Amino acid sequence: MVKGTKRFFLEIAYDGTAYHGWQIQPNAVSVQEKLNLALQTLLRAEVETLGAGRTDTGVHAKQLYVHFDSDNILLINSPDRFVHSLNALLPFDISVTRLLEVEAASHARFDATERSYEYHVHFTKDPFLINRSWQLRDRLDVQRMNEAAKLLLGKKDFGCFSKSNTQVFTNICTITEAKWIEVAEKLVFHITADRFLRNMVRAIVGTLLEVGAKGKSISYVEEVLASQDRSKAGTSVPAHGLYLTKIKYPYIDPIKE
Amino acid sequence: MVKGTKRFFLEIAYDGTAYHGWQIQPNAVSVQEKLNLALQTLLRAEVETLGAGRTDTGVHAKQLYVHFDSDNILLINSPDRFVHSLNALLPFDISVTRLLEVEAASHARFDATERSYEYHVHFTKDPFLINRSWQLRDRLDVQRMNEAAKLLLGKKDFGCFSKSNTQVFTNICTITEAKWIEVAEKLVFHITADRFLRNMVRAIVGTLLEVGAKGKSISYVEEVLASQDRSKAGTSVPAHGLYLTKIKYPYIDPIKE
Repeated sequence: MVKGTKRFFLEIAYDGTAYHGWQIQPNAVSVQEKLNLALQTLLRAEVETLGAGRTDTGVHAKQLYVHFDSDNILLINSPDRFVHSLNALLPFDISVTRLLEVEAASHARFDATERSYEYHVHFTKDPFLINRSWQLRDRLDVQRMNEAAKLLLGKKDFGCFSKSNTQVFTNICTITEAKWIEVAEKLVFHITADRFLRNMVRAIVGTLLEVGAKGKSISYVEEVLASQDRSKAGTSVPAHGLYLTKIKYPYIDPIKE
Repeated sequence: MVKGTKRFFLEIAYDGTAYHGWQIQPNAVSVQEKLNLALQTLLRAEVETLGAGRTDTGVHAKQLYVHFDSDNILLINSPDRFVHSLNALLPFDISVTRLLEVEAASHARFDATERSYEYHVHFTKDPFLINRSWQLRDRLDVQRMNEAAKLLLGKKDFGCFSKSNTQVFTNICTITEAKWIEVAEKLVFHITADRFLRNMVRAIVGTLLEVGAKGKSISYVEEVLASQDRSKAGTSVPAHGLYLTKIKYPYIDPIKE
């Protein structure tokens, strides 16, 4: 970092329907591209952002942290005004919740200790859930799905749920939460881990749905895990029911405001 | 009705964003037009629908009842299949929840004994609330608004909250519920009455917001009511925060399946 510059975290949220995910890329509209553009307009300087993780095309985020560096004093003197101005510049489907000054060495991706996702499904056509939840026709056995979900907990190799040919050093993740909760007309899957592999949540949900629809036994999850073979797991569910919901850092108070 | 035909109630819901309200009209897209088209396609006959009430452009409905007549036996033999097929023909932003056969003399508008609306407001930009809730910048005093809302309860002349030049026989309505409830990031106004005048809910919300923002005293509501003058009430709030939520009939069980 240039001397005098400071590092900031931005807490953002977005409806991913119109975007090819978070990460900037050529020939496709990304959330990061829109955020960079708004930041550069406001700060009148080149700004590079780094997000806590990627999201795929159509996936939503209720909370994503992003870091960037700046020496603009507006950020230190009037963080609330800065957030307000940034929101006015951003499209309607991307919002900024808060700006935090952090230690210079803080890193939005490497420092994250925990990530949470939700997957939303519903069963009867609902005009208010379009692009927000996946509609299934048949009811599911929630208790069976939750028994199967428990088998995912712990430190394991989750390569069977990962997109093949992904360049990662290890497939080991520690899942600390995996459960389905019924909320009004919806059924929501909550999953938390230290890290996730590409496509992992959507493949896990697809696998649990095969158990919930009664076609597969609860131990099917164990068989899939033991196989370490992606072709053994269930079909990935569509992106529009998936939400990145929470990212934890040792130094950030998760309570908003 | 033609001999042999039966009367049916449809329970529908819609996101009103793309529609010029419920009621069919020339040169504007309405929910009724889309519903009639789907019904006629499915029943292969002319179908006339009648809704429990109108909604304005951009207003949503979580529940609206509509009646129509038909002699198609599909409706009696396979109501669930009919609802499913109708949903498949309707646009994504209109849904049908159930079909009920009713007495021939039943009337979706005249038999309704109670109607409920909600008005949603929120305070920080939220990508998931676009077109679903009205964003306000300043926080409101909910307790003051609820004290003011209590003054609306009972059988009164509500002409002061009605669009002028409306051709109705009386401005007398009986309000049985009027309260604000905080739900997560939102503040939701709930109002129930035997009937509503045109624009009434939006003018009432605008009036209560003037009290909640501290500019007006609680007794301002009494002054507006006593004046019977529309110009004394608050500005009508935008349509996209308004939801028709419930319509009650003496002969329909409100509990959905």
